[in-house]
Amino acid sequence: MESKEVSAFLEAVRERAPLIHNITNTVVSNFNANGLLALGASPVMANAVEEAADMALNSDALVLNIGTLEASQVEAMHLAGKAANEKGIPVVLDPVGAGATSYRTQTVHELLKDIKISILRGNAAEIAAVAGLQSQIKGVDSAVDNKDTVRIALEAFQALQVPVAVTGPKDAITDGDTIYTVENGHSMLTRITGSGCLSSAIIAAFLTVSPNTLEGAAAALGFYGVSAERAEGYASMQGPGTFQVELLNALYHVGEMEMKQQINIYKEVRTEGE
Amino acid sequence: MESKEVSAFLEAVRERAPLIHNITNTVVSNFNANGLLALGASPVMANAVEEAADMALNSDALVLNIGTLEASQVEAMHLAGKAANEKGIPVVLDPVGAGATSYRTQTVHELLKDIKISILRGNAAEIAAVAGLQSQIKGVDSAVDNKDTVRIALEAFQALQVPVAVTGPKDAITDGDTIYTVENGHSMLTRITGSGCLSSAIIAAFLTVSPNTLEGAAAALGFYGVSAERAEGYASMQGPGTFQVELLNALYHVGEMEMKQQINIYKEVRTEGE
Amino acid sequence: MESKEVSAFLEAVRERAPLIHNITNTVVSNFNANGLLALGASPVMANAVEEAADMALNSDALVLNIGTLEASQVEAMHLAGKAANEKGIPVVLDPVGAGATSYRTQTVHELLKDIKISILRGNAAEIAAVAGLQSQIKGVDSAVDNKDTVRIALEAFQALQVPVAVTGPKDAITDGDTIYTVENGHSMLTRITGSGCLSSAIIAAFLTVSPNTLEGAAAALGFYGVSAERAEGYASMQGPGTFQVELLNALYHVGEMEMKQQINIYKEVRTEGE
Repeated sequence: MESKEVSAFLEAVRERAPLIHNITNTVVSNFNANGLLALGASPVMANAVEEAADMALNSDALVLNIGTLEASQVEAMHLAGKAANEKGIPVVLDPVGAGATSYRTQTVHELLKDIKISILRGNAAEIAAVAGLQSQIKGVDSAVDNKDTVRIALEAFQALQVPVAVTGPKDAITDGDTIYTVENGHSMLTRITGSGCLSSAIIAAFLTVSPNTLEGAAAALGFYGVSAERAEGYASMQGPGTFQVELLNALYHVGEMEMKQQINIYKEVRTEGE
Repeated sequence: MESKEVSAFLEAVRERAPLIHNITNTVVSNFNANGLLALGASPVMANAVEEAADMALNSDALVLNIGTLEASQVEAMHLAGKAANEKGIPVVLDPVGAGATSYRTQTVHELLKDIKISILRGNAAEIAAVAGLQSQIKGVDSAVDNKDTVRIALEAFQALQVPVAVTGPKDAITDGDTIYTVENGHSMLTRITGSGCLSSAIIAAFLTVSPNTLEGAAAALGFYGVSAERAEGYASMQGPGTFQVELLNALYHVGEMEMKQQINIYKEVRTEGE
Repeated sequence: MESKEVSAFLEAVRERAPLIHNITNTVVSNFNANGLLALGASPVMANAVEEAADMALNSDALVLNIGTLEASQVEAMHLAGKAANEKGIPVVLDPVGAGATSYRTQTVHELLKDIKISILRGNAAEIAAVAGLQSQIKGVDSAVDNKDTVRIALEAFQALQVPVAVTGPKDAITDGDTIYTVENGHSMLTRITGSGCLSSAIIAAFLTVSPNTLEGAAAALGFYGVSAERAEGYASMQGPGTFQVELLNALYHVGEMEMKQQINIYKEVRTEGE
């Protein structure tokens, strides 16, 4: 994928400032709102069953994140998800900590059953858990060594029949036929909480301007990865506190030039019989 | 309004460290607690119906913020509000996202009906929505272009009969007779989440030391605006991550000298027939 | 206590990345997750009754923090606490704001009755309130002048028969027989929210690698205090915004050398009749 296309999506997000409705966890709500604002999108967090559907109907995309799920929030996710489907806006599902408890895994399955999800975004362990693949998860933030993200993405698509983005050192995005891989980012992302959650929110923002889901998701992850690289460049080993600050700065500043120099997005179309 | 008066309020807040009870949204609770601590006030967040009234009775001011409202939190707001009224402490109401869903707008109306609010603080779109004026709201954080904050504040007071502060590029505070306008602040405030919410919390802190509501609110917004200007001076275009950090630093450091040099608060008393 | 022992615990935490299950308040959940990640531990926040026990059973330690308690969260604390006891993992209880409302004080008493707590960590006012000692509390974040932390810790142990850590300018940790005091830290810790809560979470992380509760808690507080000193060294009076960033950086970077130079942990064993 050309950096020009990614830049075009980015400019479109900044120009339109799409309203992204997040039903998300209390750990990352501040950071994700700030990340979306830094990017140029317009975040709104609204978890209550009384308004979840209304808010989704007013929004340009919906993010469902189960990081601190509880019963009434899950109910709100179903209401908002159905409203989003009705309106035809993108829905990103982030299965934070799936596999860590059966409550999380089951909740994801129910959401996948009830709502048309544009893309399921998680780390290798989370996606493997949702898809019933062999893997291990530890907590919700820890880095997963599994580097075989392409295989996990493909197997998860086979099992779930929903577009999947597996993020890690190499991100893999697939709908079974086409596979995008993104080789951007920085390991410091694993030392701040909510960096995965924020990638889901940024995918949602890009999906509002992209005609194609995989392309939009790949562009979002490429942009996010380049932003992380810039952030660590500025933070230069000062630590995760500074990295987090610089990541917000980068989301605000990264533009065409950095993307041209740094972005690495590859596309592969599978042929019959693969 | 003279910078000396604002400085006197600020010093009083720092000396007394008033306890500010916040029933607020999960997105900004950390940032607002840190903002109040940086200023020198003492924040407490307590949303549970079991303790909302008790906490309000132990506090020096109460902030009600509907940013992530849900049924039990709204109930806690009513309980805390009545306790605050009973004790005679100031109550600031922040109608975050009013107009975005009917649940938000109705909740604000019920709070206004049930509780004596010292001041209603919101952006132009939120205040217009609460007052039933013609306007548009998009999300909860987005900047509103409407610069006619004075007119909106006056019309909202007419409709609601409660003191109003409309914040924006020019803040307007009125009780129908007197109008304060504050021309301080920085546009970077619109690129971090919770900056409006924090202004409400800081107003609450100033109201604990000011004998006059409008004066206290105007002083708070002037101080806050000067702090934002200092913050962007130090952040010097590095981005919203750095700006947020510097805003907390500024709330801690801004004193008499900066206020003397920068503060712009104007007072107008309306005469009969206007 | 020798800095070498503290460094050994720190290295063990960084190597094993223990999973710390936090049932904590919405104000500090992001900061505490980031603090644990910076240290090298693996945080998970999970408050729902549906999964609290499951998550505790998958974890290496549990933190119960009542900062924004409400009924269902308290129920989850009981479920997780019992599961943790069953599994035999450490449980740290942080009685945030105890004494401020009777709901908080009672909740702590019920948790102490129902669950075997490894250590109760609070500031002087909170611990005094829980133990029924004479003291005053104001809010949840404010510094308490009371410097007689050793006496409060001993009296609280007498009253509660649970190991106690009272943090303040001088931290005191005791099980009635042995008393550790820690003279590290920085007053800027009182100007950011969640710094006390984070000390509880870091104690939990150290307890997963220490064979002895008091020793582990003292080491954790020594490490944390040294980190705060380094943070303010780097922040050099810029303010609480920068201090918070630098504290996360310090938790990531502080190692053997800084501990050797700065750590001040003293151990006293009480003899009969004292």
